[in-house]
Amino acid sequence: MNPRDQHTGSAVGSAAQPLRSDAERNRARIIAAARTVFGRDGLNASMASVAREAGVGIATMFRRFPSKEELVAAVFADRMDAYVQATEEALADPDPWRGFTGYIETVCAMQAADRGFADVLTMSLPGAEALEARRAEAYQGFLELIARAKDSGDLREDFTSRDLVLLLMANAGVLSATGDAAPDAWRRLVAWMIQSFKTPSGGELPDPPDDAALYQAMRRASLGVTSTETGKGH
Amino acid sequence: MNPRDQHTGSAVGSAAQPLRSDAERNRARIIAAARTVFGRDGLNASMASVAREAGVGIATMFRRFPSKEELVAAVFADRMDAYVQATEEALADPDPWRGFTGYIETVCAMQAADRGFADVLTMSLPGAEALEARRAEAYQGFLELIARAKDSGDLREDFTSRDLVLLLMANAGVLSATGDAAPDAWRRLVAWMIQSFKTPSGGELPDPPDDAALYQAMRRASLGVTSTETGKGH
Repeated sequence: MNPRDQHTGSAVGSAAQPLRSDAERNRARIIAAARTVFGRDGLNASMASVAREAGVGIATMFRRFPSKEELVAAVFADRMDAYVQATEEALADPDPWRGFTGYIETVCAMQAADRGFADVLTMSLPGAEALEARRAEAYQGFLELIARAKDSGDLREDFTSRDLVLLLMANAGVLSATGDAAPDAWRRLVAWMIQSFKTPSGGELPDPPDDAALYQAMRRASLGVTSTETGKGH
Repeated sequence: MNPRDQHTGSAVGSAAQPLRSDAERNRARIIAAARTVFGRDGLNASMASVAREAGVGIATMFRRFPSKEELVAAVFADRMDAYVQATEEALADPDPWRGFTGYIETVCAMQAADRGFADVLTMSLPGAEALEARRAEAYQGFLELIARAKDSGDLREDFTSRDLVLLLMANAGVLSATGDAAPDAWRRLVAWMIQSFKTPSGGELPDPPDDAALYQAMRRASLGVTSTETGKGH
């Protein structure tokens, strides 16, 4: 059991009161098992398979996590914290371009380290309000990073937040193809893209997909939890 | 039965002599069925499932295509022709940069139109010498396109042929995520990348993966036929 699991467990509990120690242990075991199962089978893995991996009964499972959204939120709470923190650190950088590019690199590195998290970023989890609120916070921060880097004249005017989504999709393709054989190949893709985002513009670009199409695509691409989609999303 | 199948059938036949008309029909049916099955299940689909889809017996199947490599080669022969032709057309362009970028766009468009073909480009098919020879031809042409565009001062010196492989992997990620929801999203990714390839350099880049690592990754990513790998490839 790792200390992060403990933290995650207490930070995003569906039960706010302190858990008894065996309940805490079960909770941490379930989260650790869910990390394994989600990592292996994607986020569409069943609650039952997570319970099996954790070695707990299905009743215990649902007592700790009444819905899959809550389980996903608990598993990825620390990643979401890091994601929000990356926005804050980027905004604290006095250099708007360095802040912007550092943020892009950090998010792509988080995706390289944990591909399940990239799925979480692109799906809506209506049962997990705390996570949704943090995601919205990070998104607002990203819009501000974009505005700052355009104001300073560093970022091309035709860059939109949807280009980060495109980059995450592209990065997923490189990560999935290269895997352990060339684990740093994605860094070169990200560097090419960041250099292209910089002024002066290298030319016209085809329009990005509109928001509706892109978010439909993201929901389509995300696994399993998409069935809970409510039309929310940014 | 479509005329292209006929052409494909006669161009890359395992039997060079003219086929009797029912044999020709079977051959075309098998190729059409293989397109369907490979498109649906990937290139690791079994010969038996292709025979089932074609409604021919397994004996007929193996009489027409003694190995899966030969079937794959026949299915994709016309695509490989188009691929080689794209190199030739690009080299015929008096403007080295326009030739180079047009080629990148064409190859990415071919990938968007037929994702199975992108797999074929990145795997070695030792049983299909004619296809392998054409692939090698296209690769030599691409190296020449790169050299021309560097000589004219348009293409960054740090671009390597491996960057096209990276781009194809990235493009696969966008295509797979966006699909029908945003079918043109990939064009924007490709435009960002091409603009970044243009001089002047936007800065240092992380090294590309070395050839061995990249081709190991490609074989790992390609489906099924990888078991026939012989260490060949460029």
